[in-house]
Amino acid sequence: MKGVAPPALLEKRLGSQEVFKGAFLHAFRDQVLLPSGASACREYVVHPGAVMVVPLHENSRGEVELVLERQFRYPVGQVMIEFPAGKLDAGEDCFHCAVRELWEETGYRARQWSHAGVMHPVIAYSTEFIDIWFARGLLPGPRNLDDGEFLEVFTASPEEFFSWCRDGQVTDGKTLAAGLWLQNTLSGNWPLSWHDHPMDPGPVEPL
Amino acid sequence: MKGVAPPALLEKRLGSQEVFKGAFLHAFRDQVLLPSGASACREYVVHPGAVMVVPLHENSRGEVELVLERQFRYPVGQVMIEFPAGKLDAGEDCFHCAVRELWEETGYRARQWSHAGVMHPVIAYSTEFIDIWFARGLLPGPRNLDDGEFLEVFTASPEEFFSWCRDGQVTDGKTLAAGLWLQNTLSGNWPLSWHDHPMDPGPVEPL
Repeated sequence: MKGVAPPALLEKRLGSQEVFKGAFLHAFRDQVLLPSGASACREYVVHPGAVMVVPLHENSRGEVELVLERQFRYPVGQVMIEFPAGKLDAGEDCFHCAVRELWEETGYRARQWSHAGVMHPVIAYSTEFIDIWFARGLLPGPRNLDDGEFLEVFTASPEEFFSWCRDGQVTDGKTLAAGLWLQNTLSGNWPLSWHDHPMDPGPVEPL
Repeated sequence: MKGVAPPALLEKRLGSQEVFKGAFLHAFRDQVLLPSGASACREYVVHPGAVMVVPLHENSRGEVELVLERQFRYPVGQVMIEFPAGKLDAGEDCFHCAVRELWEETGYRARQWSHAGVMHPVIAYSTEFIDIWFARGLLPGPRNLDDGEFLEVFTASPEEFFSWCRDGQVTDGKTLAAGLWLQNTLSGNWPLSWHDHPMDPGPVEPL
């Protein structure tokens, strides 16, 4: 259904202009033809895309724990509880980005990976997509944060996590969307296809 | 836990500069002091905030149906399946915005409303929040779309909706996050507090 855009909804690009190029934000203003025949302008940010990883850690009692992060997010002025995530490097595929971001931010490498889905966090004004991955069979190691990146890694039970989603301690959109996947994965409603991922046993390098 | 920012994570504003002001996007670049004592720049979009409504319609067989929209979203170049949503007008509170957006986009007014929570769709580069509301006891009426707004309204069963979340037909972040609320509301895990809302029986005006 979604793939076929009804002609009554489509907008057609008439022209495009770069309006801002900063260190991070890259913004454009396009002139578009509306379904009515009128024209309008659309302003938006071009983003390389990102990945998010839901890391499932088995504790010593065989229970599943989630690996989460606390990170101060300047635009919202709050420390946010999030699943590990990060932007694609130029030319990088989503899976390698998922492996790299999990390793850089948490130090964990994972024996098994599964692709869950994709989300678009901000369809009104950004091209960004976030590819959603699950990881399990986690091996701890030292973190490898980027310069200027400050975040805390911690674990929580699924019950704690869902209570925080309900009571407003988790408000990050991507993390709430991952919660839908997580709830249905844990319940068995949406089974994942896990794939083994060979891990370099030597010095850890981004894969 | 979230309210108290660990000092090791906080960033402090040193200065702020407007870098772009368009018809929609309003972007800033701030200099910030990092926890390490170094400085960095943060580029972000200032957004007035938005609301999303999960409208629960009871069909003639007494079954719950969801009121959804299909809308072409230019930045992602796709027709997206979404719950009704829209930006706050200047000085508008979230509840009035929720009532107004549901009415404008779908024509429905609702006898009962419940606040669910709030989400931050894009914490890395926007101040945007989305306040999440549920509506039930729906009365149909004519739509009142803004100029240049083109969208289709349709209904789906919760089962259809969740299957679309799983198979990638729903990828809008706010709508997936609403799915977490919806699933737990329908299951009884996260009961909502419903409030009656008196509706003007005369000509429909934004409340």
